[in-house]
Amino acid sequence: MTVLYTGIAELVTNDPELGVLTDAAFVTAGDVVLWVGQASAAPAADERVFLGERAVVPGFVDSHSHLVFAGDRGAEFAARMAGQPYDGGGIAATMAATRAASDAELRALVAARVAEMRAQGTTTVEIKSGYGLSVAEEARALAIAAEFTSETTFLGAHVVPPGVGRAEYVDLVTGQMLTACAEHARWIDVFCEPGSAHAFDADEARAVLSAGRAAGLGLRVHGNQLGPGPGVALAVELGAASVDHCTYLTDADVDALANSDTVATLLPGVEFSTRSPYPDARRLLDAGVTVALATDCNPGTCYSSSMPFMIALAVREMGMTVTEALWAATAGGAKALRRTDIGVLAPGKRADFTVLDAPSHLHLAYRPGVPIVVGGSGRP
Amino acid sequence: MTVLYTGIAELVTNDPELGVLTDAAFVTAGDVVLWVGQASAAPAADERVFLGERAVVPGFVDSHSHLVFAGDRGAEFAARMAGQPYDGGGIAATMAATRAASDAELRALVAARVAEMRAQGTTTVEIKSGYGLSVAEEARALAIAAEFTSETTFLGAHVVPPGVGRAEYVDLVTGQMLTACAEHARWIDVFCEPGSAHAFDADEARAVLSAGRAAGLGLRVHGNQLGPGPGVALAVELGAASVDHCTYLTDADVDALANSDTVATLLPGVEFSTRSPYPDARRLLDAGVTVALATDCNPGTCYSSSMPFMIALAVREMGMTVTEALWAATAGGAKALRRTDIGVLAPGKRADFTVLDAPSHLHLAYRPGVPIVVGGSGRP
Ligand SMILES: [Zn+2]
Ligand SMILES: [Zn+2]
Repeated sequence: MTVLYTGIAELVTNDPELGVLTDAAFVTAGDVVLWVGQASAAPAADERVFLGERAVVPGFVDSHSHLVFAGDRGAEFAARMAGQPYDGGGIAATMAATRAASDAELRALVAARVAEMRAQGTTTVEIKSGYGLSVAEEARALAIAAEFTSETTFLGAHVVPPGVGRAEYVDLVTGQMLTACAEHARWIDVFCEPGSAHAFDADEARAVLSAGRAAGLGLRVHGNQLGPGPGVALAVELGAASVDHCTYLTDADVDALANSDTVATLLPGVEFSTRSPYPDARRLLDAGVTVALATDCNPGTCYSSSMPFMIALAVREMGMTVTEALWAATAGGAKALRRTDIGVLAPGKRADFTVLDAPSHLHLAYRPGVPIVVGGSGRP
Repeated sequence: MTVLYTGIAELVTNDPELGVLTDAAFVTAGDVVLWVGQASAAPAADERVFLGERAVVPGFVDSHSHLVFAGDRGAEFAARMAGQPYDGGGIAATMAATRAASDAELRALVAARVAEMRAQGTTTVEIKSGYGLSVAEEARALAIAAEFTSETTFLGAHVVPPGVGRAEYVDLVTGQMLTACAEHARWIDVFCEPGSAHAFDADEARAVLSAGRAAGLGLRVHGNQLGPGPGVALAVELGAASVDHCTYLTDADVDALANSDTVATLLPGVEFSTRSPYPDARRLLDAGVTVALATDCNPGTCYSSSMPFMIALAVREMGMTVTEALWAATAGGAKALRRTDIGVLAPGKRADFTVLDAPSHLHLAYRPGVPIVVGGSGRP
């Protein structure tokens, strides 16, 4: 059955890049776009839906999240913001709470978070493991994640868990844990941050990514978040789809990204929630780097699931125009996942769209904090 | 009929100040609170509502908004953020669009904005005029505002409108316009900012406030937003309920506020949406000043209606703890409106409450941009 959507004051297509139509319409057949154009030229369809002269944008592609966890770290957040030392156990506390949760509990938590994302306009979400940190628990996290998305990422190399030696843990991640997890994952990721006691240095990260590639997984990297480091160079060298955070970059890092197929995924909710300096998106865009925006939704450093909030932050804090930020949150996220079927509203692409209670996509940043997403293919 | 609310993981009462109960319950009779305490000690009631082990907070009191307007200024916002000079006409454009709107159109716009606020947990909203800027249009704006709230504010002295002399306009605001507007308004307000070409200096602001007081209105001031100025001193001298913005304060301003009944209302959405330096809430709190948070929801400098977003900004950018920010957004707003019946959940107070899909009020800042308000007495 074909559906003609009309009453679209503004349609952001990203086709061509940053493409925007006014008085637009589009036609879908099932979950595929058949036609996009001016309302006055719209073809007939089996059904017709009037969208109330609102703006329509591609569904958000949140290419970086950590949704499989249990426990609450609100008190740790509040203490950090108040400058108090309490950390409540940090990642180890989340690991313990996650391990203690039953499958049904964990599944319900992930389902609620995915529904919350969909209500805010996200139509594709990547979900990482990384709070299990044992063979069985990482495999369980990924099996649950795979019930909600095909974009699952094995992040056994999130941190070295308490009580395990570094070398021993890297052996486990690249060996038995990878074997147990690969069937549930499309991607492998590593937290490469040599300055951080529990994260991984360049050699360890290279070992993790190489093993993942040998197991058929695509590559992603957490890098250059807390200081300059080898993450970006390693990601580009190994042809990772994305390197995420990119807060501290040398000119050589920027050049390497600009001359690669590796996307720089920025996660400004982390800087908001940790009161840290923001990455410089303008520098990356001006150098020709492909930039994506994602939430990093996680209990420790950013418990926000809101892509509109990331767009507002990108505009306020990182020098992006609203249109660039929206592109990064849709087509940019698609490129970070090496997907060509999403992030763009054009014939043959997936009919993943989001309706805003606003006349223009500019309201995504003009109305910060306001839930203006009111419809679309991803709504629960 | 009495109702017992249970299943409250955390209840913020603000009684005493910053008071928080866990495993709490409360009983209402109509729109009044009868009883608050531990769930285990709850009395019987005619009906029982289970809130799902969520957090409950007093309804937000948004003591500063400009909801009566028509027209769209998204493009002006986007240009400002991109550093481009386009302003699309600024306030004059809003004035023209507002004057051109029919009563029914304007009423529908205000209704939609009030509903949007209520959906985000706001149970009391102050609404200002200020985009009519003629006798008939200011009176019309206030008559429409009064359909939605008893907290209406006459802000004829928002700016000097195009084509009108300053002295002539102050005469109008303090004369014929005040006469036409006083019956629809509880408050009078003035934009006192001598450095701004279209705003009002200390003498003009004094004339406006004195005339308003003589007409029986309470006093409010927009002051010290764009630079140091006389707004705070004037507000304290005349016993205004609140002086709003307070971005640039001298030590004498802070001392004057601390030794007064005038509330300092901070509007961090403005600084977010204009990329300006934030006011220093910590300095005010440490000096003993009563601080309120509000949205300033308006089409030019902050088109956000979200009190949770203001709380998140206050924590990230202004040195407030989450609990202090919530107090400022509830009890602080009540003090800024000289109301003793709201902002606190205690026997005899109004049963204005907001339910969060979270175990604690800390999530108001821990989950920035996420619409976690899921219930309460103000929900549409
Ligand atoms: Zn992450
Ligand atoms: Zn204002």
